Amino acid sequence: MTFRLNHLAIVVEDIPQALAFWRDALGLSLSKMERVADEEVEIAFLPLQDGKIELIAPINTTSGVAKYLAKRGAGLHHICLEVPDLAAAMQRLRDRGVELINDAPKVNAEGIRYCFVHPKSAFGVLVELYESPSAAQV
Amino acid sequence: MTFRLNHLAIVVEDIPQALAFWRDALGLSLSKMERVADEEVEIAFLPLQDGKIELIAPINTTSGVAKYLAKRGAGLHHICLEVPDLAAAMQRLRDRGVELINDAPKVNAEGIRYCFVHPKSAFGVLVELYESPSAAQV
Repeated sequence: MTFRLNHLAIVVEDIPQALAFWRDALGLSLSKMERVADEEVEIAFLPLQDGKIELIAPINTTSGVAKYLAKRGAGLHHICLEVPDLAAAMQRLRDRGVELINDAPKVNAEGIRYCFVHPKSAFGVLVELYESPSAAQV
Repeated sequence: MTFRLNHLAIVVEDIPQALAFWRDALGLSLSKMERVADEEVEIAFLPLQDGKIELIAPINTTSGVAKYLAKRGAGLHHICLEVPDLAAAMQRLRDRGVELINDAPKVNAEGIRYCFVHPKSAFGVLVELYESPSAAQV
């Protein structure tokens, strides 16, 4: 199967500072900024030819992302791949002994069903899966 | 500008173990394996709809990747974006105070000109740039 990369998430302390590199120096476009109250973060979206880079900064010192930053520092945080059938993908992973962070699919503000694979099952990488019925997988 | 993601590199200790997750459990395809003697690594290529994931494992205990693994553990290592004119991109970055790891473009085994941006200038992310004259950037 060929998966589509939905996004590549990078945790930063400060979005404007990070944009000075990603947008102003490197030259990527900024398509939108979004404040996600539930996750206590602000996100800057930088589209790639396919998929996008998301710069994620905490909006307080107590969120999960703030704690991650304090412990690990800024850097690559997770990758999100699209799957056509999330429940089937989760079952397939579980059948092969992969640990998922959430047992049942979650739904984000855009109505997208998603889950996270535990980094210890993915060799240090935090992998998010988005359900996208139109995901082209050949 | 819209950049193309050429690859997303993940450092692992052992390619067959990592493939048990990425290929067998998650379902990505393995398109090829390659041993890169110069960098003392073995690489597994897993194509995405656009771009690819590269699993990189050291073939000895003295290579740069082996040292990285010993210090940081397995996980996301770098992202590689395509630019149409590498020299111009490097000059633009330098003009804005961005530190590059190599001062002049390097050339890999496939003849691709590339450079690395220092992670301290990219907020913790190791960014590689590949020159691809046909890179669609609008």
